[in-house]
Amino acid sequence: MLTYDLKKAPGLPLYESLYRHIRSDILSGALPAGQKLPSKRALAAHLEVSKITVEAAYAQLLSEGFITAREKVGYFVEAVVTHQPHAPTPVPDLPEPPPQGVDLTGGGPGKFPFSVWSRLQREVMLDYGETLLRPLPNQGLLSLRRAITDHLAAFRDMTISPENILIGAGTDFLYNLLIQLLGRDKLYATEDPGYGKIQKIYAAGGARCTPIPMDGDGPIPSALGDAQVLHISPSHHFPTGQVMPMQRRLELLSWAAQGDNWIIEDDYDSEFRFHSRPKPAMHTLDRHGRVIYMNTFSKSLAPSIRISYMVLPTALMTVFRQKLGFNSCTVPSFEQYTLERFLSRGHFEKHINRMRKYYKNQRDRLLDLLDHSPIRDHITILEQDAGLHFLLKVDTQLDDPALLSRCADAGIRIHSLSHYYHGPVPEDARHTLIVNYDRLTDDDLHQLQTILQHQTFPRGEGGPP
Amino acid sequence: MLTYDLKKAPGLPLYESLYRHIRSDILSGALPAGQKLPSKRALAAHLEVSKITVEAAYAQLLSEGFITAREKVGYFVEAVVTHQPHAPTPVPDLPEPPPQGVDLTGGGPGKFPFSVWSRLQREVMLDYGETLLRPLPNQGLLSLRRAITDHLAAFRDMTISPENILIGAGTDFLYNLLIQLLGRDKLYATEDPGYGKIQKIYAAGGARCTPIPMDGDGPIPSALGDAQVLHISPSHHFPTGQVMPMQRRLELLSWAAQGDNWIIEDDYDSEFRFHSRPKPAMHTLDRHGRVIYMNTFSKSLAPSIRISYMVLPTALMTVFRQKLGFNSCTVPSFEQYTLERFLSRGHFEKHINRMRKYYKNQRDRLLDLLDHSPIRDHITILEQDAGLHFLLKVDTQLDDPALLSRCADAGIRIHSLSHYYHGPVPEDARHTLIVNYDRLTDDDLHQLQTILQHQTFPRGEGGPP
Repeated sequence: MLTYDLKKAPGLPLYESLYRHIRSDILSGALPAGQKLPSKRALAAHLEVSKITVEAAYAQLLSEGFITAREKVGYFVEAVVTHQPHAPTPVPDLPEPPPQGVDLTGGGPGKFPFSVWSRLQREVMLDYGETLLRPLPNQGLLSLRRAITDHLAAFRDMTISPENILIGAGTDFLYNLLIQLLGRDKLYATEDPGYGKIQKIYAAGGARCTPIPMDGDGPIPSALGDAQVLHISPSHHFPTGQVMPMQRRLELLSWAAQGDNWIIEDDYDSEFRFHSRPKPAMHTLDRHGRVIYMNTFSKSLAPSIRISYMVLPTALMTVFRQKLGFNSCTVPSFEQYTLERFLSRGHFEKHINRMRKYYKNQRDRLLDLLDHSPIRDHITILEQDAGLHFLLKVDTQLDDPALLSRCADAGIRIHSLSHYYHGPVPEDARHTLIVNYDRLTDDDLHQLQTILQHQTFPRGEGGPP
Repeated sequence: MLTYDLKKAPGLPLYESLYRHIRSDILSGALPAGQKLPSKRALAAHLEVSKITVEAAYAQLLSEGFITAREKVGYFVEAVVTHQPHAPTPVPDLPEPPPQGVDLTGGGPGKFPFSVWSRLQREVMLDYGETLLRPLPNQGLLSLRRAITDHLAAFRDMTISPENILIGAGTDFLYNLLIQLLGRDKLYATEDPGYGKIQKIYAAGGARCTPIPMDGDGPIPSALGDAQVLHISPSHHFPTGQVMPMQRRLELLSWAAQGDNWIIEDDYDSEFRFHSRPKPAMHTLDRHGRVIYMNTFSKSLAPSIRISYMVLPTALMTVFRQKLGFNSCTVPSFEQYTLERFLSRGHFEKHINRMRKYYKNQRDRLLDLLDHSPIRDHITILEQDAGLHFLLKVDTQLDDPALLSRCADAGIRIHSLSHYYHGPVPEDARHTLIVNYDRLTDDDLHQLQTILQHQTFPRGEGGPP
């Protein structure tokens, strides 16, 4: 006879507790297919519950097909669902990066104006209350789009309308939306060298993607071939650090305008320059509505804040509203209201200015450390005034994998320039390390100093570290 | 001579102010291409600034290609960039829905436990502090995935691992990820009738999509044809309200297992049933790892909270990590920590119970109102115990557009069942309205009563309202 302790689930009706026990036994196979269940009266007596309880439990099992009733014979376990699916094998969670050693691979600003942000969050909660629950326009909160418009006018001399701004949960998401908007029948060109992730996103989105080789000014226009969409970061190219000169910008704009092509201008990190103003965004120079401007706050504020945006030319925004207007906005309203205040009250500007000083200081200390280290005669610093990294060319006969392996052995996590090439790596891009100092701590600087002091330089082999 | 008031921009260096003025004039065309600029000395004297200021401004303009220098002749405006791009024509912002009249088109829960949520937000801010800034695993916060695992175990009898959960900013986003994961070469089948939006999302994602006709039990297996992915909502189909019986579930599971096919089980709204427990999720019955379970908190909490999730079979999760692991998580960590507490402290359960009572009361009042209205002999209520709507069949000779137009004239916003058909509308699906009562207010009920009292029923025409 089925024996269950029905008192063990307080708050659950008895019949439901009984139903769950029997169902669980059917799914686990403890009650095999074809097995006859006890009569309602007998089970009720055995479990010391009312017959109604058993009736209700059997009725539920019947209605869900776990048992069948044969008239005047009784209830039987159904044949079809005999055992519970195997619990899936756990796949290990993504590991945290190892804390030891010096990490020069970057990872976005580590300093965030947390107290200001929290204060604004509390204010937003008090001031807006249940307004925060209203569905948002799918382009994002109008007041945030206005704040971004003002920000772009003040910092990038851009004259745009909030109507052209589309807010989304990260640039990955926006790239996917762009593929849907521009079409996956087009050929998308990306910079080579460049972030491999961008190619992966376009490919996963179903678009054909081709890397375009760069010269000292940027992607080479004559190499564009059949490409119809060009993804670039003219204000600050990663990893070379190049800033695209005006002439190349105009050439690419002319390519876009004449061939019904599109330029996606990724302007991330344009905030961080130490000596001069950033060059104007290509969007400012675009007289034909062919440039899609993109930027993100995940990079300039914190990676856990997922707010990016793009500025669509009016014709494209019209197509978006017609074809893709069914998409809901992916950023919670609470974060949008908070960022709106953060921008419009000048906190973002202050934050960027503070970070600029902080980064410049870290960079200067790092350069000074290198300049006073035993490896100083074996390295050359290549730097343009953009972004939060510089290139470190090493005078060595080691190939890049061996060089990186030496770094790793010494406790330094770092990438090489060659790592970012899709096509062949030019000779002058070899033996070159990318030094990201955006999350370099004081402790890192001390560690690095110690590491470099103890580095030996075997003759003939050339290089450090 | 160029005349600018350089004092008007406090905080800006003089050279930068001058640079901006000249650049603005070049972009607007006030300084036409080819125009010679005044010499540095002359402009400095004219503007009463130092020559160094003018030099710095000209240097910036030179470096950005706005002007060129001809040796011993002077500086000239560049020919290429002659005027600022036209500011894009503003497209009107999305209109708010009109506030007057009675809205029976639905729109998700209107009542949200705002004070509890705010309190948890404040707690999270205090307790986690800068931890909130750390990048998250791309599947979402582990503690939130654990809380969802516990929730699914308690409410849906589902035995899963947090490792199989993927959190994203809304189901639209997750559908797109699924297309990337399963492939857009597959044929995706959706329920007909059903939400048109789902078809649009798959089509925009580049997947082929086909509507599958339904009988009284759900999508007809023999109509699946070449489909390889089936998107269904077995716990509560919209708009028919159907709950899929066990036998059809097993048939579809067998289709999935035998043909290397996939089932996407959209379980939204399964929380809201008034009389019986929801049927077990198909995921529970899936012994071959072919069911992808999806649900969202945007629907059960508030549309402005963009948190949805899916449970991937282990094999698919492995593919996700290999092929799409570069995607960043789209939900901000702050919202994830807050939801984690909301779930694990039992607030979600309380909220759902409260809402269930509230909805049941609104439904009962609405049914009572209809039952005492002059139209009571002209209507039939079709209802299954699921979701937050019922069907109202009208005895009328009006066709559906005319019926809806009569409703609109009377001040009632409502959809017809026929609106949700992709293929031909069966005869018995005509003259049927979908009554969503999820955001029905007391005021709506009063308005509706007044509208129905004043409704006249012309003979021969049959129907109201």
